[in-house]
Amino acid sequence: MIDDTRASEITEHDPEIDETQRLISSRKVEGTHVYNLEGEHIGSVDSFMVDKLSGQVSYAVMSFGGFLGIGERYHALPWDALTFDTSAGGYVVNITREQLEGGPSFAHGDDPWTDPEYGRLIHSHYGLPYRM
Amino acid sequence: MIDDTRASEITEHDPEIDETQRLISSRKVEGTHVYNLEGEHIGSVDSFMVDKLSGQVSYAVMSFGGFLGIGERYHALPWDALTFDTSAGGYVVNITREQLEGGPSFAHGDDPWTDPEYGRLIHSHYGLPYRM
Repeated sequence: MIDDTRASEITEHDPEIDETQRLISSRKVEGTHVYNLEGEHIGSVDSFMVDKLSGQVSYAVMSFGGFLGIGERYHALPWDALTFDTSAGGYVVNITREQLEGGPSFAHGDDPWTDPEYGRLIHSHYGLPYRM
Repeated sequence: MIDDTRASEITEHDPEIDETQRLISSRKVEGTHVYNLEGEHIGSVDSFMVDKLSGQVSYAVMSFGGFLGIGERYHALPWDALTFDTSAGGYVVNITREQLEGGPSFAHGDDPWTDPEYGRLIHSHYGLPYRM
């Protein structure tokens, strides 16, 4: 179960941070670092899954493990699990490495999103409410 | 001035459309067609500008004109100007070609987002309120 106190903060607009620092091109999200609460680097962003209708990012897909793409697994995290840390320039997640390792994952070339239950599965694993 | 009646609809969740149809990878947004209200194809999506903190797409960057990338211009449209048309599989904007041609644009390699006023300029041109 994720404590989503932090997650709720990300939707608030911080007047101290202007748009030039807030915006990132969809072409450049790859490689954004992801840390756990202990500050340990646990992976990096591969891509975002965006809701085409609302324009809201629903999942951050993390690439995780592997070497030169071999054996690499992709783990989608619900957006609500991520908090952007402006000082670190990356996302912080209240998720342990064990939770991540045991979470739903897929291989390069797979498209798990064709399964209408996939999103629900992800939210359930991380103990977050599924809103669709 | 854009009539944003349509735009307001996109934030509503349509129970008829499941997540498998709603989600698109940030890697695949390029090439999504953009039409005007007359159904005329006016360009295609190059990329999205995403708010790193909230995960909300703020602008769709359209590529427009040019040939093989030469002379191509990029025009960012406020997300509120776009409505996803599921039957067309693309976005509909209540913007004329003339408005688009006269709108803020930049060349390949330029990064206009370093200007903190750029977002405000775009919203102003299309007559949409700027919320930051």
